[in-house]
Amino acid sequence: MKDAIGGYGNRDTNLIRDIGERRAIKMIESIIGSKNIGDDCAVVDFGGYSLLVSTDMVTAKKHMPEGMTPYDLGYFLAAVNLSDLAAMGGKPLGLVTALGIPRYYKISDFKSLVRGIHQCARKHGTNIIGGDTKECSTISLSGTVIGYARKNRVLKRSGAKPGDIVMVTGKLGGAASAYFKITNHEKLSTTLKHRLIRPEPRLREGIALSSTGAVTSCMDISDGLASSLYQMAEASGVGFELDAERIPAEKVAKHVSRGFGVPIEDLLFHFGGEYELVFTVKKDAVGMVKKAIRACGTSVPVAEIGRVLEADDADLMRVFVRHPAGTYVMDCRGWEHFRS
Amino acid sequence: MKDAIGGYGNRDTNLIRDIGERRAIKMIESIIGSKNIGDDCAVVDFGGYSLLVSTDMVTAKKHMPEGMTPYDLGYFLAAVNLSDLAAMGGKPLGLVTALGIPRYYKISDFKSLVRGIHQCARKHGTNIIGGDTKECSTISLSGTVIGYARKNRVLKRSGAKPGDIVMVTGKLGGAASAYFKITNHEKLSTTLKHRLIRPEPRLREGIALSSTGAVTSCMDISDGLASSLYQMAEASGVGFELDAERIPAEKVAKHVSRGFGVPIEDLLFHFGGEYELVFTVKKDAVGMVKKAIRACGTSVPVAEIGRVLEADDADLMRVFVRHPAGTYVMDCRGWEHFRS
Repeated sequence: MKDAIGGYGNRDTNLIRDIGERRAIKMIESIIGSKNIGDDCAVVDFGGYSLLVSTDMVTAKKHMPEGMTPYDLGYFLAAVNLSDLAAMGGKPLGLVTALGIPRYYKISDFKSLVRGIHQCARKHGTNIIGGDTKECSTISLSGTVIGYARKNRVLKRSGAKPGDIVMVTGKLGGAASAYFKITNHEKLSTTLKHRLIRPEPRLREGIALSSTGAVTSCMDISDGLASSLYQMAEASGVGFELDAERIPAEKVAKHVSRGFGVPIEDLLFHFGGEYELVFTVKKDAVGMVKKAIRACGTSVPVAEIGRVLEADDADLMRVFVRHPAGTYVMDCRGWEHFRS
Repeated sequence: MKDAIGGYGNRDTNLIRDIGERRAIKMIESIIGSKNIGDDCAVVDFGGYSLLVSTDMVTAKKHMPEGMTPYDLGYFLAAVNLSDLAAMGGKPLGLVTALGIPRYYKISDFKSLVRGIHQCARKHGTNIIGGDTKECSTISLSGTVIGYARKNRVLKRSGAKPGDIVMVTGKLGGAASAYFKITNHEKLSTTLKHRLIRPEPRLREGIALSSTGAVTSCMDISDGLASSLYQMAEASGVGFELDAERIPAEKVAKHVSRGFGVPIEDLLFHFGGEYELVFTVKKDAVGMVKKAIRACGTSVPVAEIGRVLEADDADLMRVFVRHPAGTYVMDCRGWEHFRS
């Protein structure tokens, strides 16, 4: 069959490559007449609970840096899916996977792939509960995570209020640093490499945040801190101000920035590929939230990095960075821009 | 990166194409230490309910007969997913989709694809509630459906009991007939074409079956009636006997069988691509079940086609067909991926 399902256009046609992922999502929203699908998870009320469902796809073309094994790839698939649940403070009920695999894929590699998915799920307190496996001309993997939270404890992008404190888990710039080292064939530690290819979803941390009742908005920063903050700013109808000197950065990021001539902001704010959580907290609850995070048994640090601006139309939906050299507006670009 | 995530083997290696989809599933089950994933949906207890989750993938290579439009493809994706829920008697809570789309795909085709998914979901009482869209070198679409049923009303493959009556919805052989007509460039009606490319999940019917409390096992027959019955036989630890003359067949199947020299059994039992339900019913409840199906407002017929055999080791897990010319054992073959 020629073209029927595939409709490949010529140069004059509007093609999918001409629009970004977020515009594609807007298109879908307009067809289904809903604005739900922009959040990290879909929310379905069920009894006194909210069921949280999210699906994430990993394809050969965009996600696989050098040295990524089938095991890593499986681990990555589970991690990115669980991260969406973490971002909403959900407890996992299970993970289903749809694996598109080439005919000439080795069985041993297929087993490693599944083991990677399984072990990431187990590490984060859940399981593969179902799936589908199909032949595909390229590796194309989808996961769907199902979880739940009490109805009034679901973390959304939209609740940030003026005066709230902006916080983030972990240290930033590790994934980007690993990427630049790998693509430039520089040696790097396994720990650093794993920051890029084997991210850990902040599931325990998200559940702890949800439990406090004091977290007003939350997202993962997989597309980069900047991209996430701009999305939270838009969803919440607020502006943010960050303190450049309080951004928790991996030491290696400075070296990479100098060594490869990449602005440090690109590594910390725009590159993405990190699965930390950025969230806002009522000002008087910061201590309590920090305590809740520590109590969940994680070794991941949390840092206050800024605040939600007091209502002022001029600042709405913008993100400022206070730097000793002067305050500037953070670029609104993230992982999408690294695509093409 | 060469080969790291891809491990393409040479002729001496064991490759995915050397095993069938069901063996791949067994492999996954052994890794995750669970036997759950063989059923149509994963079952998660939640309060007094069972949450039902199923994921199904549609890739360019295997699913797209000539003349299938992007709209059809989207419709198909939703239908096959909803069919898994129908098979377990679940009510839908929503559908999420992960769409892998080539860069040179037309935006208008992408919109048609999404419209197809949306309209199938709407027709069957549910919605797209979330999704992911990624660039992929080939069309690779996954859906995940989430639904629920009361705990004791979930329809499984494993409950068929000796003496139960075997029933099936719809008429068989339509999808196979359409396939042979299309591949041989014969004219066919839109109605017949739709039997292949735009199947309707039997969701209402499945919910009605679940409500009776008298259906002891159920499956969809997407891989063919034979394949489904053998899976039910194994899961239930029983044997089946069908009456050849009671199998509800599309009239066109006979013509296609003669015209193209394809055994009628291949069209009715083995080809697959039909999303009817096969199920077993307590003998004294057949009338009540038929009434429940009619009451759900469907125009789809149901037929009694056979019975579950009385326990006899020799007949366990086998499917017999009683035919005027003599009883024979049904071939255990159907539609499987990675094969042929």
